[in-house]
Amino acid sequence: RINPDRLWDSLMDMAKIGPGVAGGNNRQTLTDEDGEGRHLFQSWCEQAGLTVAVDSMGTMFAQREGTDPDALPVYVGSHLDTQPTGGKFDGVLGVLGGLEVIRSLNDLGIRTKHPIVVTNWTNEEGTRFAPAMLASGVFAGVLEQDWAYARTDAKGKTFGAELERIGWKGEEPVGSRKMKAFFELHIEQGPILEDENIDIGVVTHGQGLKWLQVTLTGREAHTGSTPMPKRRNAGLGMARVTELVHEIAMDYQPDAVGAIGHIETYPNSRNIIAGKTVFTIDIRSPDKETLDEMDERIRDGVATICEALDIAYEIEQVGHFDPVTFDEGCVAAVRGAAERLGYSHRDIVSGAGHDACWINRVAPTAMIFCPCVDGLSHNEAEEITREWAAAGCDVLFHAVVETAEI
Amino acid sequence: RINPDRLWDSLMDMAKIGPGVAGGNNRQTLTDEDGEGRHLFQSWCEQAGLTVAVDSMGTMFAQREGTDPDALPVYVGSHLDTQPTGGKFDGVLGVLGGLEVIRSLNDLGIRTKHPIVVTNWTNEEGTRFAPAMLASGVFAGVLEQDWAYARTDAKGKTFGAELERIGWKGEEPVGSRKMKAFFELHIEQGPILEDENIDIGVVTHGQGLKWLQVTLTGREAHTGSTPMPKRRNAGLGMARVTELVHEIAMDYQPDAVGAIGHIETYPNSRNIIAGKTVFTIDIRSPDKETLDEMDERIRDGVATICEALDIAYEIEQVGHFDPVTFDEGCVAAVRGAAERLGYSHRDIVSGAGHDACWINRVAPTAMIFCPCVDGLSHNEAEEITREWAAAGCDVLFHAVVETAEI
Ligand SMILES: NC(=O)NCCC(=O)O
Ligand SMILES: NC(=O)NCCC(=O)O
Repeated sequence: RINPDRLWDSLMDMAKIGPGVAGGNNRQTLTDEDGEGRHLFQSWCEQAGLTVAVDSMGTMFAQREGTDPDALPVYVGSHLDTQPTGGKFDGVLGVLGGLEVIRSLNDLGIRTKHPIVVTNWTNEEGTRFAPAMLASGVFAGVLEQDWAYARTDAKGKTFGAELERIGWKGEEPVGSRKMKAFFELHIEQGPILEDENIDIGVVTHGQGLKWLQVTLTGREAHTGSTPMPKRRNAGLGMARVTELVHEIAMDYQPDAVGAIGHIETYPNSRNIIAGKTVFTIDIRSPDKETLDEMDERIRDGVATICEALDIAYEIEQVGHFDPVTFDEGCVAAVRGAAERLGYSHRDIVSGAGHDACWINRVAPTAMIFCPCVDGLSHNEAEEITREWAAAGCDVLFHAVVETAEI
Repeated sequence: RINPDRLWDSLMDMAKIGPGVAGGNNRQTLTDEDGEGRHLFQSWCEQAGLTVAVDSMGTMFAQREGTDPDALPVYVGSHLDTQPTGGKFDGVLGVLGGLEVIRSLNDLGIRTKHPIVVTNWTNEEGTRFAPAMLASGVFAGVLEQDWAYARTDAKGKTFGAELERIGWKGEEPVGSRKMKAFFELHIEQGPILEDENIDIGVVTHGQGLKWLQVTLTGREAHTGSTPMPKRRNAGLGMARVTELVHEIAMDYQPDAVGAIGHIETYPNSRNIIAGKTVFTIDIRSPDKETLDEMDERIRDGVATICEALDIAYEIEQVGHFDPVTFDEGCVAAVRGAAERLGYSHRDIVSGAGHDACWINRVAPTAMIFCPCVDGLSHNEAEEITREWAAAGCDVLFHAVVETAEI
């Protein structure tokens, strides 16, 4: 078993970097705080005897050598970046859980045949630079590195420039590594495990996602003196699309979700009818056909709404991944570890996207979920117990060691 | 008649200060650009022989002496501040039109019995610091100066601190001036005059307004992994209130309007269900009962919407004025001037709020409208013709001179 207190202490130490305003974290990707978090993680890795490499997307790989120089490494990890109002565990648990696996192996003096590599993927959250899981997407060959470098944040800064600025653009070409397997431990970010009082989620599938960025163009005009029939109100259009997305998601739930979380209104003045709005629709389903059907209904609905309001629209897909089926062998390793350790467990579908969803395309991959309080995530109040973290990390330890072979 | 080219040139010179991004202006109140605009106006006033005083709300009063030292001055003016994406004429025409009246009197060597004072009221637009018409509201005794000083912009800066910072906080106590009359020339900001091909709007009434700032509090949560029934989506709530306001306004139109122009979403991330939204509802009607009825329906509707979504709400009224009936004598002076000068004219209700609406409470007041292209305002593309400006300023000239007596 791993050392629960050491794991917890490291989680709390990392949470001191980029503190939020309400007990959580604001350590968004490629900020100074992200850089600081990376340095702390690097120093811990070096203390544990690992060799740290960085690829040209900024992803960190901390390697513990195996006994067989020809054996492919087993990878573990997740991400250290957070939402602007994020929690202390989303992503971080998977990275520091991986480090705890190494520390426990060191304690026990166990050497594995296959090397083990703890990974910190760059820009998993996608909130500063869309899309989410950017570096793992480039690693898996699904996204282009040059396209990724050109992604801009709200201030117009590019991913590439910010990666250089914080000093974490490495030499290693992206995607050059072959993996025996990849395991990601993560909090569930939903309520199922806690509701059912279950320790471990054995993640068999991941939901598919589409992010549709919509730009509506109406006409800025005075809110007081412009007659109602003369208005071309891009704010009203956005409101109607928001309701549309909700209604469509409700039609398919529980097998789909949908919402709009990011919006910009121009010129955003109390007495100006919005001339332009830009917002991103987030729709998800474990079923590809459902996702495509939702996408189609949304596009039709947006067209209808805009026609009625005499406003123009553009829709750009800024994020997308198909539903994922994780590797049978890796999933079995997770399930077997939970079983062996005596933890209650159930199979579960991931509602969120994860780096594991991309890596699954280039290596056998599985995920382990632990519960989180009230299913709450992407909220500074995100919370887990020390016991939940320990159980998840124990299962990770066993699955990894079994795969890396003693 | 006034000098149309001089008026136009001054309008264009002022428009060079705080240029917008699309041909208009961004000279928001108490910015450096506002300060620069004030200096230019002051220098023009001094060249025209006027004495400039500034009150403790930053309002500028440029006086031309009359022949009777005991006679109450006649005031003219409007405002030099603009929307963030404002036009070159909204407000500016009324101030520089007033200056052109003085310059024309100087040209003609005419002295009036009553002094004439050209006024630039601070923060008419209300977009940086709500509410609109802030300084004229304090002047009229409707708003408290200390309350006005404490108003904050989006960055948390106060009106009082910013007024000191740009160096335009004067010594003169606010509201200490008695007026014989106040005349404000302004663009219509609506389509009626242009549609009907009429030169002059004789403004008999002004619409009443309410600004209701609404804060909705739901719960930040992950857009992917939070089941639909568990969501407390403050963004969806805002969308529904936006539709509600539109529907209510449509029920009463053409005698009412309503929209939401300013919105903030927290934390505004693509994959976070909004935990909080803050936005301002703008409703207007020339009829007080209609306005009150709309207000009541909105409050009821917000309560119903929030209950269904399990979100909390607060409503704060951040702006308000009752419908206005302008002074019969002053209105007659405007109508008579248009008649005498041979301009086509019609009585009209102002859709927008104006400093004249507050000053009307403490002095006989009237307004003159000239058309604007397509009724467009609060838009950088706001446009008027040289002829429209000249006609409006001619009528202002005659009404003022008649009231100030030769
Ligand atoms: N796990 C997680 O929150 N990932 C961010 C990408 C997503 O929105 O699902
Ligand atoms: N005239 C004008 O645009 N005033 C601003 C206040 C309002 O919104 O009516």
